[in-house]
Amino acid sequence: MSQYRVLIDAYDEKGLVNKVSGVFYSYDLNIMSNSEFVDQENNKFFMRSVVDGDVNLEELKKSLTDILPSNTGIEVIEPKKKNIIIMATKEMHALGDILIRHEAGELEANILAVVSNYNDLESLVQKFDIPFITISHEGLDRSTHENKIIECINGFKDVNYIVLAKYMRILTPRFVETYEDKIINIHHSFLPAFIGANPYKQAYDRGVKIIGATAHFVNNNLDEGPIIAQEVIHVDHAYGWRDMQRKGKDVEKIVLSRALKLALEDRIFVYANKTVIF
Amino acid sequence: MSQYRVLIDAYDEKGLVNKVSGVFYSYDLNIMSNSEFVDQENNKFFMRSVVDGDVNLEELKKSLTDILPSNTGIEVIEPKKKNIIIMATKEMHALGDILIRHEAGELEANILAVVSNYNDLESLVQKFDIPFITISHEGLDRSTHENKIIECINGFKDVNYIVLAKYMRILTPRFVETYEDKIINIHHSFLPAFIGANPYKQAYDRGVKIIGATAHFVNNNLDEGPIIAQEVIHVDHAYGWRDMQRKGKDVEKIVLSRALKLALEDRIFVYANKTVIF
Amino acid sequence: MSQYRVLIDAYDEKGLVNKVSGVFYSYDLNIMSNSEFVDQENNKFFMRSVVDGDVNLEELKKSLTDILPSNTGIEVIEPKKKNIIIMATKEMHALGDILIRHEAGELEANILAVVSNYNDLESLVQKFDIPFITISHEGLDRSTHENKIIECINGFKDVNYIVLAKYMRILTPRFVETYEDKIINIHHSFLPAFIGANPYKQAYDRGVKIIGATAHFVNNNLDEGPIIAQEVIHVDHAYGWRDMQRKGKDVEKIVLSRALKLALEDRIFVYANKTVIF
Amino acid sequence: MSQYRVLIDAYDEKGLVNKVSGVFYSYDLNIMSNSEFVDQENNKFFMRSVVDGDVNLEELKKSLTDILPSNTGIEVIEPKKKNIIIMATKEMHALGDILIRHEAGELEANILAVVSNYNDLESLVQKFDIPFITISHEGLDRSTHENKIIECINGFKDVNYIVLAKYMRILTPRFVETYEDKIINIHHSFLPAFIGANPYKQAYDRGVKIIGATAHFVNNNLDEGPIIAQEVIHVDHAYGWRDMQRKGKDVEKIVLSRALKLALEDRIFVYANKTVIF
Repeated sequence: MSQYRVLIDAYDEKGLVNKVSGVFYSYDLNIMSNSEFVDQENNKFFMRSVVDGDVNLEELKKSLTDILPSNTGIEVIEPKKKNIIIMATKEMHALGDILIRHEAGELEANILAVVSNYNDLESLVQKFDIPFITISHEGLDRSTHENKIIECINGFKDVNYIVLAKYMRILTPRFVETYEDKIINIHHSFLPAFIGANPYKQAYDRGVKIIGATAHFVNNNLDEGPIIAQEVIHVDHAYGWRDMQRKGKDVEKIVLSRALKLALEDRIFVYANKTVIF
Repeated sequence: MSQYRVLIDAYDEKGLVNKVSGVFYSYDLNIMSNSEFVDQENNKFFMRSVVDGDVNLEELKKSLTDILPSNTGIEVIEPKKKNIIIMATKEMHALGDILIRHEAGELEANILAVVSNYNDLESLVQKFDIPFITISHEGLDRSTHENKIIECINGFKDVNYIVLAKYMRILTPRFVETYEDKIINIHHSFLPAFIGANPYKQAYDRGVKIIGATAHFVNNNLDEGPIIAQEVIHVDHAYGWRDMQRKGKDVEKIVLSRALKLALEDRIFVYANKTVIF
Repeated sequence: MSQYRVLIDAYDEKGLVNKVSGVFYSYDLNIMSNSEFVDQENNKFFMRSVVDGDVNLEELKKSLTDILPSNTGIEVIEPKKKNIIIMATKEMHALGDILIRHEAGELEANILAVVSNYNDLESLVQKFDIPFITISHEGLDRSTHENKIIECINGFKDVNYIVLAKYMRILTPRFVETYEDKIINIHHSFLPAFIGANPYKQAYDRGVKIIGATAHFVNNNLDEGPIIAQEVIHVDHAYGWRDMQRKGKDVEKIVLSRALKLALEDRIFVYANKTVIF
Repeated sequence: MSQYRVLIDAYDEKGLVNKVSGVFYSYDLNIMSNSEFVDQENNKFFMRSVVDGDVNLEELKKSLTDILPSNTGIEVIEPKKKNIIIMATKEMHALGDILIRHEAGELEANILAVVSNYNDLESLVQKFDIPFITISHEGLDRSTHENKIIECINGFKDVNYIVLAKYMRILTPRFVETYEDKIINIHHSFLPAFIGANPYKQAYDRGVKIIGATAHFVNNNLDEGPIIAQEVIHVDHAYGWRDMQRKGKDVEKIVLSRALKLALEDRIFVYANKTVIF
């Protein structure tokens, strides 16, 4: 008996649910959970099923491919640990949260390595017997520095996601394109408010009463990629921007870990610079 | 072209989704939205679809009945205004919120009448040209008083829901059984904390840092019916219980109106003293 | 025995609390509540006390003035109903929420009139025996239209606050300057995200997972005045922008009413385009 | 120049603020922040000031003692790291969150040791060079087991707080009395709902739409001590109790760490089984 996650991404038309569920039925599969969404404006159909039964992954995929329209995205995934690389700079909270979850067995992930432009976090990461790789940017132009990082990442096989756990440098288009929809970032504001540098300072200057954090896939427009998860906390006049920064860390780490978990469980569809999350 | 809401409540077995979607497909219906839930522990299956097309309600229902297991709950509902009766006592906020939404055309509902044991709210209700019926409990025992209310409600045809908008008297089992799963109450606490009288006083005495409100269907155990919606707000030591009561009103009215809306849109299944909400 | 609210707004220096509390003590006043805030960055001091006792307002103010630095803002306010004018356009929820609270006696306010550029809300307002004044903008340039509104408002005496309960037109600098720090607006987004027109559409297009509302004083930069209160709600991919708009109304009305209540209770200090709220 | 936290806990009477601020003024101290609360019902006065200047701690305390009523609680505290002992059982999230914060230098605390009745968490704790002490309860009655723990704790000097980071055994009255108002527990429900064992299972069975966590001081009535902090998250029908448990961990750890931080910063007054938090 196997359990599979089936992801369908199609242009909407009548009968899609019937066709997919018909294939499941023909293989005598149990539907453990099933989520659908029709975006009527864009005529798009999304479906995520978890099925359980005695069937071969390739066969199941072939049967779905045979019956569904030709331009349909079809994924049949066997749940297993995905490979991730974490990038960080100096702050400990977001990275630490992932490390503890990993240690507790909460994440369907192997952490292949932590890559940083500084070595501040080395001693923390090494406690957990995870490779820590420092690639300093000092004395290097952005492109040379990134080349070294890409080279480093390419040294690992089957990297599923790159997690930016407060990696404080802007990535070049080349980097982003290389790992399209594979890079998850945490931005320390409630996007699209306060794009760019020091969002807590911006928030403080604006006098907001709520601050937040946003986990998103990275694309080539700074902080404008598809949003995966957001969360907020209330602040008041007594918060200086460093207080906001301090309190904001709790939201940042929770939101990033939540987004990572959604990705690892294959719950995210990306389209039109947005996400559908089941 | 008609639009219907289809509600399926079955014991789970393989092929249910396929059968239901097969019927939809055979009638050339468009699935506008589709939600399913399998409760594996209780082996239950729930489905709510909104379909659009050229079909007769009775025919569609018959086709579903023919193909689904005999003990399946099947409802095919044409969206239209439901009839509600509101019961209240003296407080204005929850009733007022419903009246304004009704006036704004936000609710799929006709308010047949507001029934109260006091006449404090009469002038408010009459502004909106809605019948206000005072049935005082003074000098009456509980049963006699309720008989008069039941008699009054029975004078209206096709009452779909009775909404207790801060009706501050306990209903007898007889009343509750008469309108099973039709009575929606707002309790001014985060149930199951602070069952019974003056929950804000109880919350204050306990020194909680969060207060809440709970909308639920009424059953024969006080404040223990199936929960529909809950919401909370933060408080601190500076809140006396009257401050909690004052601030709590905002949550109470929003939660009650939200629950009412879910009921009016046929989004709630009740089973095992719980709700499934799509 | 009288109760007063005392508001102190000063440049910070040692001894301010001691001086103010010394005056209270000398008049044998009871301090019912006391809040202070020192903004160290800007060297500012804010204090709000509620005191109770047998003293004359003018005398108390004079004693405070005598002892505090000359450039200190000192207000001694006797709690009483403030006069407000509400401006609205066509939407009922925010206006309706204020009307119900007013009817319930929850607000320390007299509603002098509701002014609108349309007459859609006339029948609602008239239910509550409050003057409704339609000043159509049709065929008028912005300035001429506003002149008529200003003229109308000037016809009322002692207007303390103008509440924009979804008034959907931009005010000119002249209007704003005339009523500086007296105009409270509700913007239907989590500012500073989605400034300007149709923020829900903007939020939908951006694919956010949280939407919000912001109550703020109006200044001459659109949606950039001092923020009084903000609140948010979670949304997901299934929300079209009209769903966001519908759900957002609950937040809008609660936030606007909350901000209005803070203003009526003299709990807001404005400085540096921010608010201090006690 | 020194910075002190001054905590005043008195029966309310006129002139308290004036007296305290008078002492500060006489020593030429800067008031960095100042919070007061009068509980009129219980005639209690609480004040927390942070002052900065050139003064001796004992002198300042003596001056306050001389001028304030004799039964007033007066503490003058120099900010420095407090000593804490953490107790845990098998779950990693709450302990891990504190370890990471400690490692990041976020906490004003020395972790003297982690004590557990199992050794599951030993390898985690040892990564951080913190003593891990296993005191198994197997084969011991409750009292004998606790004696060993008390003996162990007594082996450390100046223990300020004992943090129960999901320590899953009930403490005896003797233990609780020994460390009155020094034991901080995290209960995995929104108290007072779901006191006792497996609150997530209780919450699931009740069909709640919100779950929560509560940090509180421990007293001799199970889960009924003074509440320090609470937080909640929304759930729906699709959450089994293990899903609630999983999602609840994020709230548990954040709330416990928040409560610990408040304690370490001397921001909590306890009275009448409640807390005042500045």
